[in-house]
Amino acid sequence: MDARNIGLRNIEVADTKICSIDGENGKLIYRGYDILDLVNHSSFEETSYLLLFGELPDKAQLEEFSYRLKESRKLPDSIIVNLKNRPKTALPMDVIQSCVPSLSDFDKNIYSDTKEDNIRRGISLISKIPTIVAAWNRIRMGLDVIEADQELSHSANTIYMIFGRKPTLEEIKVFDICLILHAEHSFNASTFAAREIASTRAHMYASISGALGALSGELHGGANIQVMKMLFDIGESKNVEDWIKDKLKEGKRIMGMGHAVYRTTDPRAEILERLSKSMCKNENYKWYEITRDIEQYTKKYILEFKKQSIYPNVDLYSASLYYSMGFPIDLNTPIFAISRISGWVAHVIEEKFAEAAPKPALYRPKAVYVGKYCGPMGCEYTPLNKRKP
Amino acid sequence: MDARNIGLRNIEVADTKICSIDGENGKLIYRGYDILDLVNHSSFEETSYLLLFGELPDKAQLEEFSYRLKESRKLPDSIIVNLKNRPKTALPMDVIQSCVPSLSDFDKNIYSDTKEDNIRRGISLISKIPTIVAAWNRIRMGLDVIEADQELSHSANTIYMIFGRKPTLEEIKVFDICLILHAEHSFNASTFAAREIASTRAHMYASISGALGALSGELHGGANIQVMKMLFDIGESKNVEDWIKDKLKEGKRIMGMGHAVYRTTDPRAEILERLSKSMCKNENYKWYEITRDIEQYTKKYILEFKKQSIYPNVDLYSASLYYSMGFPIDLNTPIFAISRISGWVAHVIEEKFAEAAPKPALYRPKAVYVGKYCGPMGCEYTPLNKRKP
Repeated sequence: MDARNIGLRNIEVADTKICSIDGENGKLIYRGYDILDLVNHSSFEETSYLLLFGELPDKAQLEEFSYRLKESRKLPDSIIVNLKNRPKTALPMDVIQSCVPSLSDFDKNIYSDTKEDNIRRGISLISKIPTIVAAWNRIRMGLDVIEADQELSHSANTIYMIFGRKPTLEEIKVFDICLILHAEHSFNASTFAAREIASTRAHMYASISGALGALSGELHGGANIQVMKMLFDIGESKNVEDWIKDKLKEGKRIMGMGHAVYRTTDPRAEILERLSKSMCKNENYKWYEITRDIEQYTKKYILEFKKQSIYPNVDLYSASLYYSMGFPIDLNTPIFAISRISGWVAHVIEEKFAEAAPKPALYRPKAVYVGKYCGPMGCEYTPLNKRKP
Repeated sequence: MDARNIGLRNIEVADTKICSIDGENGKLIYRGYDILDLVNHSSFEETSYLLLFGELPDKAQLEEFSYRLKESRKLPDSIIVNLKNRPKTALPMDVIQSCVPSLSDFDKNIYSDTKEDNIRRGISLISKIPTIVAAWNRIRMGLDVIEADQELSHSANTIYMIFGRKPTLEEIKVFDICLILHAEHSFNASTFAAREIASTRAHMYASISGALGALSGELHGGANIQVMKMLFDIGESKNVEDWIKDKLKEGKRIMGMGHAVYRTTDPRAEILERLSKSMCKNENYKWYEITRDIEQYTKKYILEFKKQSIYPNVDLYSASLYYSMGFPIDLNTPIFAISRISGWVAHVIEEKFAEAAPKPALYRPKAVYVGKYCGPMGCEYTPLNKRKP
């Protein structure tokens, strides 16, 4: 096959109005708005509205949207019962991936696939994924599942349902910024999976479940778990330089460093670096320091060994940040899902209802069977009793 | 974007040794073997072995493989309990898609991702998907779940677990051919979804769950349900000509006719036509006749209206065939999954462990944000209280 097609890195697969990434200049744009403006002025609810509807809401629209999110928070009782029936060791991402298609069971209008139905399903999923994550985390720890607090915003309520205590204003602000930052990133692997599945006219739940599967992989959303494991493995700031040098000499990649699209600092990493620094308090400050040193030494030795520049990506600083906020490490990827669901939903809707030509079509690529890495041809079928062992 | 990229129809995304489709000449090749040879001489177990391992098994290998399939049939008790907890109206494809990631809960070695682990997971899934389908179909009808009969082959046991009676030799043979025919078809939408998810290093269960989502769409595996709905809608052979003419005049597509790859008769459709004719007995014979007439009149009027040739695909004759065998209509797509799981598993393993360069990489395509169908740029963030309703 044409090596330029590997991973589809250079192939334009669709038109989109949702997100623009300027990898050369480190700009991330949601629906025309710079991520920095959204981080400084917006909320996750407002950003989700923007992603879904293409425009910022006015006051009444935002209130209605926030209300719809709140009223969708509760999970059906039988889903909670089924969560309690699962082995306590079940991986959180597997739990979310299996819960989402079972939400379809409760959609009374599942055979209807209008834009309105998809928006309704999307709002329900943006609202319910935090509930699934929180419920599962409580259940596996043998704790009571906590009902949503309808006085709290989306971010505040998510922290509340996970920990069972009201979050501080600082925690709410930081977590809300994290959700805004991770909400959308164009045709990354999970979003592309969601669109690919939706292109068959599969419903929203089926598409999002596939996206969750893709997110779980360690080359994608699973990377923020791998970063935290690396921090533990390094243990102390003084170990960073040797650790990084050794890994790079072994030809290993450093998790949290480098990105398929950005050729400069990922704008999200800059913000997360600042948040990690402020939230890694007291005995946790060392996790920020180790992370900062990982960035520094990876940059230094990649330049020395490969004559290349490398920059931190969104996963590098989120690991120490979430850890310092008290989240169990294996919730790092679920937190990514709690945010990215807004982007996925917007993309599924765009895939199904794009207004302009060329319309998206069922994804059905080619593969090369005969070539350098060729498969066999013309094999003659030998009956079983004549085959040689 | 470049219109030639739509749906990736002309883009080579990977090398593969699993399957070759000659769309011009109507040839389908699994691992070098013509599908006609496999249908005439092989079994689903042998074909699955071929897809997974790349070679036909000798006698001892086939026996061991069949044994491993048999010993994996049983579902964990808690999964059966959870199935019983779901609303009886849950769609079978949603049920399978949500069960597969929950099987991961019982994989004691889930963090290990060797080729052997993936083969073990693959065999377990090939074995368990029929059990899930059968269990759910019994549970939703208020019937007892039937344990596997270890004396029976994969196909025979699948029919037995669904209906609760031993199948006839004719039923076993026909069903086994159906499973061989649907087992693999290169980079179709569901297989591509599985590979795309696996490319993030997500595990086998996450990847297969995504494939199940893609299969459920009516432009893909859901089409065989739509075909049966069409047969009911037409009702009688005498209605076919007008029905087809009307639909084509409205610009609608006829389900079961036409394929993205084949430019002649799909070799699977020819075999399924023959099987449908022989299995649609007595009062069911009309469903075969209607299907045959749909083929004939669609060909005639597509030629007349569009000056194009069109051919039946794999979904056209499987609908009447499965219906005549007594399967509930909404199990048509799950039966597709019972078969295609072998191809999916082979592709996930190839995606993760391809031996030759260029190795597969994380799928991360480009999208076009600025163009004819362009998104906005440079939007200025207006504070909420200054926005006009």
